[in-house]
Amino acid sequence: MSKKDTITPVSDFGEFKLIKHLTENIKLKHNSTIKGVGDDAAVIEPSGKKMIITTDMLLEGIHFDLTYVPLKHLGYKAVIVNLSDVYAMNAIPKQITVSIGVSAKFSVEALKDLYDGIYMACDKYNIDLIGGDTCSSLTGLSISVTAIGEADTDKLAYRNGAKVNDLICVTGDLGGAYMGLQLLEREKMVFNSDPNMKPKFDGYDYILQRQLKPEARKDIIELFEKNKIVPTSMIDISDGLSSELLHICNQSNVSCKIYEEKIPINFATQRMANELNVEPLVSALNGGEDYELLFTVPIELHEKITELHQISIIGHISEKGEENLIITKGGTTLPIMAQGWAAFGE
Amino acid sequence: MSKKDTITPVSDFGEFKLIKHLTENIKLKHNSTIKGVGDDAAVIEPSGKKMIITTDMLLEGIHFDLTYVPLKHLGYKAVIVNLSDVYAMNAIPKQITVSIGVSAKFSVEALKDLYDGIYMACDKYNIDLIGGDTCSSLTGLSISVTAIGEADTDKLAYRNGAKVNDLICVTGDLGGAYMGLQLLEREKMVFNSDPNMKPKFDGYDYILQRQLKPEARKDIIELFEKNKIVPTSMIDISDGLSSELLHICNQSNVSCKIYEEKIPINFATQRMANELNVEPLVSALNGGEDYELLFTVPIELHEKITELHQISIIGHISEKGEENLIITKGGTTLPIMAQGWAAFGE
Repeated sequence: MSKKDTITPVSDFGEFKLIKHLTENIKLKHNSTIKGVGDDAAVIEPSGKKMIITTDMLLEGIHFDLTYVPLKHLGYKAVIVNLSDVYAMNAIPKQITVSIGVSAKFSVEALKDLYDGIYMACDKYNIDLIGGDTCSSLTGLSISVTAIGEADTDKLAYRNGAKVNDLICVTGDLGGAYMGLQLLEREKMVFNSDPNMKPKFDGYDYILQRQLKPEARKDIIELFEKNKIVPTSMIDISDGLSSELLHICNQSNVSCKIYEEKIPINFATQRMANELNVEPLVSALNGGEDYELLFTVPIELHEKITELHQISIIGHISEKGEENLIITKGGTTLPIMAQGWAAFGE
Repeated sequence: MSKKDTITPVSDFGEFKLIKHLTENIKLKHNSTIKGVGDDAAVIEPSGKKMIITTDMLLEGIHFDLTYVPLKHLGYKAVIVNLSDVYAMNAIPKQITVSIGVSAKFSVEALKDLYDGIYMACDKYNIDLIGGDTCSSLTGLSISVTAIGEADTDKLAYRNGAKVNDLICVTGDLGGAYMGLQLLEREKMVFNSDPNMKPKFDGYDYILQRQLKPEARKDIIELFEKNKIVPTSMIDISDGLSSELLHICNQSNVSCKIYEEKIPINFATQRMANELNVEPLVSALNGGEDYELLFTVPIELHEKITELHQISIIGHISEKGEENLIITKGGTTLPIMAQGWAAFGE
């Protein structure tokens, strides 16, 4: 929570003063943003392109734990997860709206921290904050973000366009965010059982950053543009590789075969997995929150893709009716199961 | 809550099956909706018009009380409050996204009721549901809706366009939704103190409907179009007339003078106010949730507006620097104060 000197209860401000306080320094970046915060609705001048809309809700205790997630990071991440969905359409996000529900425990200064993170993401990704809603909540913090973007019709990448023999590719590396979460949970348990214990985070920077300050792959969409690559299908990896792969296969009416040895896993992720006695592969397949892109391209692009170091080819698309398979390093063949983020499971 | 025979826990379904169950019967109404539910984001084909975006969050215990709000009505209202914001720009809503956070106490059948209300509003107002997010919540129900619409540039009505001498107009009548809420709260208290008491709702249909099943003024936007009326400023009345009037005056850099005798209050609202020993005027000024439109037009339109029975002229715009005043029926002059929905107050 905020470490500022002053703690101003939100009730001292009231809704309108709070909104003004949190949004008065906005400088709009896009000419297409005609009207931002401050009216019944925002107004956008559409380009000749298609408009892309996506929305995500983050709830305290479900999507984040404020005992170890700083509010500034939370604000940043709330934006990133939405931008990632826009990039996953091979589109460019331009605007967001942000709605928050806050309980009385939050101070004005704490909300300023949250919005600092939101604005930091907006600056980095060239996004206008154009509206939202601010309300009180009985219990904890709710954040709902909607992102608006645009794309050329012939560049849009849906989940349903994968074709037999297409290469299956992922960006960056997988499983890190999940391992970061396991580390945070472990240190929280240690701290809860003995508040004098100092959490041990040294040397774990990479996986902590993957969990606490994820980035969306704007650079990949720019790389596609530069290299004239249009994926046949694409999805962002928020729920783990298995679950996302099955979405693409189900919606494209195809199957897939991937290879364990090809799945990119960072050394820091592997080390943490070993420490916790977990298979690193499991964190990549079922972990989630990496916000990397999973996509397919025609096999003719093999050479071009191989030259791009940000991208790994992990397998290929097969005929519908075949099993969705992963070939392990040991040569065993296993079916891919959806064990993603079981939001309502168990 | 649901009165269905079966009660299926949400956990029996899991996220993806639940989303499928709630959205599989959607039939898209607009050609401009290229891609609805089912991908990382929705895709819209913009017309040559401006795009309008607005969003609102409804939280259990703050915006609604499930002890007396049926879920179907809640779903309906969650859509209406957003459409109302689009109409308040003199624009036509076309699409919505809906995100919900639900705790374990909700059954699949209960959520079906909620979505039945959402779809009922979509059908009545010609809206496509194009996306959203479904997640579990630790505490109660959160609903976040984003509405997308379009408008001709020269017809857009902002809050900041009111000019000196403009007529101040409102649609329908005011205070009913607030009186409906008071009635529901009273009967809840009676029921809580003696569960054998049957709530008395006979003869209160009008104010109950105003609270539980509000409508957005699509008809007024069509009336404007038909009569070639473009308001100089407009806002929807969600927080009470006082608060909305002050928004228009502050943003337009003007003041206002209105007349109590001109403020439209339904007989049923007056009767409930008398019964509860409340000034009916107070429910109109400070009540909120009527979702009527407050707007200004040039004085030259006086005759035209007078002919439209859905609209009341309640006063006029005066020079900035003058006080914002209401002249009571008794001839007393009182300043208009913002006592709207104090979301964080007290």
